[in-house]
Amino acid sequence: MSEKTTIYDIAKELNISAATVSRALNKNPKISESTCKLVMETAAKMNYKQNQLALALRSGRSNNVGVIVPRIDSNFFASTIRGIEEELHPNKYNVIICQTHENEKREIENINTLLNAQVDGIMISITNESKENEKIIHRVLEKNVPLIFFDRKKNIDGVSSVTINDYKGGYIATKHLIDEGCKRIAHLSGDQSLEIYENRFKGYKQALLDHGIEFDENYVIQTKSNVEAGGVAADKLLQLKTPPDAIFSSSDFAALGAIQELKAQGIKIPEDFCVVGFGNEPFTKFMELSISSVDQSPLEMGKMTAKVFLEQINNTENFKMEKKVVLNPELHIRKSSSRQNL
Amino acid sequence: MSEKTTIYDIAKELNISAATVSRALNKNPKISESTCKLVMETAAKMNYKQNQLALALRSGRSNNVGVIVPRIDSNFFASTIRGIEEELHPNKYNVIICQTHENEKREIENINTLLNAQVDGIMISITNESKENEKIIHRVLEKNVPLIFFDRKKNIDGVSSVTINDYKGGYIATKHLIDEGCKRIAHLSGDQSLEIYENRFKGYKQALLDHGIEFDENYVIQTKSNVEAGGVAADKLLQLKTPPDAIFSSSDFAALGAIQELKAQGIKIPEDFCVVGFGNEPFTKFMELSISSVDQSPLEMGKMTAKVFLEQINNTENFKMEKKVVLNPELHIRKSSSRQNL
Repeated sequence: MSEKTTIYDIAKELNISAATVSRALNKNPKISESTCKLVMETAAKMNYKQNQLALALRSGRSNNVGVIVPRIDSNFFASTIRGIEEELHPNKYNVIICQTHENEKREIENINTLLNAQVDGIMISITNESKENEKIIHRVLEKNVPLIFFDRKKNIDGVSSVTINDYKGGYIATKHLIDEGCKRIAHLSGDQSLEIYENRFKGYKQALLDHGIEFDENYVIQTKSNVEAGGVAADKLLQLKTPPDAIFSSSDFAALGAIQELKAQGIKIPEDFCVVGFGNEPFTKFMELSISSVDQSPLEMGKMTAKVFLEQINNTENFKMEKKVVLNPELHIRKSSSRQNL
Repeated sequence: MSEKTTIYDIAKELNISAATVSRALNKNPKISESTCKLVMETAAKMNYKQNQLALALRSGRSNNVGVIVPRIDSNFFASTIRGIEEELHPNKYNVIICQTHENEKREIENINTLLNAQVDGIMISITNESKENEKIIHRVLEKNVPLIFFDRKKNIDGVSSVTINDYKGGYIATKHLIDEGCKRIAHLSGDQSLEIYENRFKGYKQALLDHGIEFDENYVIQTKSNVEAGGVAADKLLQLKTPPDAIFSSSDFAALGAIQELKAQGIKIPEDFCVVGFGNEPFTKFMELSISSVDQSPLEMGKMTAKVFLEQINNTENFKMEKKVVLNPELHIRKSSSRQNL
C-alpha cells in the first residue's frame, strides 16, 4: 500500500495543494524552507517514492551503471563484473550488464540501450572487431556520461582505463618456459589488432630474444579463444618439420584444446612438452593435469574500474580527468609446465 | 553524421515546418496520410532516429528486455541468456542483464532498476532465498510488464514459466547409478525451498523406492552449489558408519568437489564409487575423469523463454495468457559413473 503513496495523499495529509507538494519535493525556490521541510518529512513518513525515471530525467542521475563485455560466460569477465558490483553496490549504484558476443554492431546497440536507459556511466571491455565504434564512444563523451575501459581498451583522449600489464604477462610466462628447459616455444595469439593480444605477443617475443632464442614466426598461430581452435592450432604446430616443445597460449581455453590434442597424439606433458595459458580460468586448477596460467586479477580490476568511475562521477571540479591504471599479472605455475618434481 | 539527422533537417528537405514533421512522425491524425508517408520515407532515407527514451515514454516500448539471474558465471545461466538473445535479437530487442548473487534484496533492486529503465519485459530465474519478493512481482504484473520465470520459478497465477522436468532429471540420474550396481546412493541437494531442488530430490527418492532401495535420510546433505561445499559434504558422508557408494549431486560444482575429496581419501572412481552431477557444465566434459551429468538444455530454455515473451508482448487479444513449458532433461553418461568398460 505504502508504495502507492502519491503527491495527492501528501497534499491531503497536510491540507495544502498537490502543486505545492510537487514544488516542495522538487525544491522549487518559490516554496518556503519550512514548507519544504514539512513536505519532505511527511513524504518520508508516508514512504512516498518519486518516479525514478522522472527523477532521472530531471536530475540526470539514475543510479544505474552499465557494463558491456564481450561475453559473460568466462570467469574473467564474470569476475570483473563482480568486482564492479562489490565496489558500486555500497555506493547505491545498480549494475546492468550487456554482452556483445564480439560483434561491433551489437556493441553500438548496447551503448545506445544503456544511454536510453539513462545510465550514469558505462564501463566497457571492447570487442575484438571494434573499428567503427569510435563515433559512438565520442557520442557518450559528448553527453558527459563517464566511460571507462577495462582490460580491452582503445586509446582515446580523456578516457580512463584499467588494464593489466599484458606485455609483462607474456614475458613472465615465456621466461618460465625457458627456465623449464624449453627451446622451441610456440605462441597461440589472439587477434593482434587488440592491444592485449599484441602486448602478450610482444612480451613473448622479447623474452625469447633476451634469452638468446631465435624468434620463428612459424611458431605463432592466431587462434580464437576456444577449446576447438586450440586443438586445431596444436595439430598444425605438430605437423611442422621441427615442431615446438612448448606453447604459451594467450587463452586458457585454447591452451586446454592444445593439451587435449597433444595428449591424443601421445605427447607427454610436461615431460616432452610444456603449456602455459592466460586468464587463470577456474578449470585450469580443476584439471588433473592442472594448467599453468597468468592471472589477471579480474576482481581487483573490476573494483579499480568502479573506483575510477566513482572518482569521475563525484568530480565537481571543472577539469577532465584521465586515469590509466595498469595492474600486475601473476603467473600460477601448475603441472602442465612444471618439470621440477618429475 | 547520419546519426545526427534532426526533424529540422527533414523539415528543410521537404520545405515544411518542423512541427509538421514532428506531428507526422508521431502519427498525429491532424496530418494527412500522404504527408505522413512522405515524412516517414524521407526520415528513413536520411537515417533519422527518434530519441528512444522519448519514444519509450510515448509508446510505452523501449525495445529493451531485462533478464535477472542469480549469477552469470555459470554455464547454465550464461547459456540461457544466450538463447534469449538469439531469439530476441532478430526481433529488434536488446537484452540487459542483472545478477542477484542469491540475495533477495538485490533481486528487488534489480527489478526496480529494470522497471525504471522502461524494459518491455522481465525474464527471471529467482534467487534461492526469494520469500519476500512476491509483492514486487505483483507490482510488475500490475504495470502490465510481461514477466516470465525460467528454471527457478514461483507459482503465481497468470505468470508463465519455462523449466525442465527436474523430477525426471533426478530420477534418471539415480536410476543410472542403480543400473551401475550402486546400492547406497547419497544425494547432495540444494535448498529445497526452491522447486528445482525439491523436485530433483523427489525424483531421486522415487527412483530408490521403485527399485527396492530403502531411503535413508542420512544420505541426503544440503549443500551450496560450489566446489568447497561438495568436498565438505563428501567428507561428511565418508564418516558415516555405512558410507554410501555413490553420489547424485544436484550441482556439478558440488559433484566436482566431492570427487576431489573422494580421490584425496584414496577412493577409486568409478570402481568403488560413482558420481553424477546436474547441469552439464562444460568442465564436466573437460576433466580427465569426466563427470556424468544431467543436461538442462539451457540454450533451448532461453529460446523458449524468449518465445513466450514475444507471444505475450504481441498478444493483442483481450485475455491473459499463462503458459507452462517443461523441457526434458538428458543424462550424459561419462567416466565418473561408467563401469561398463572397466
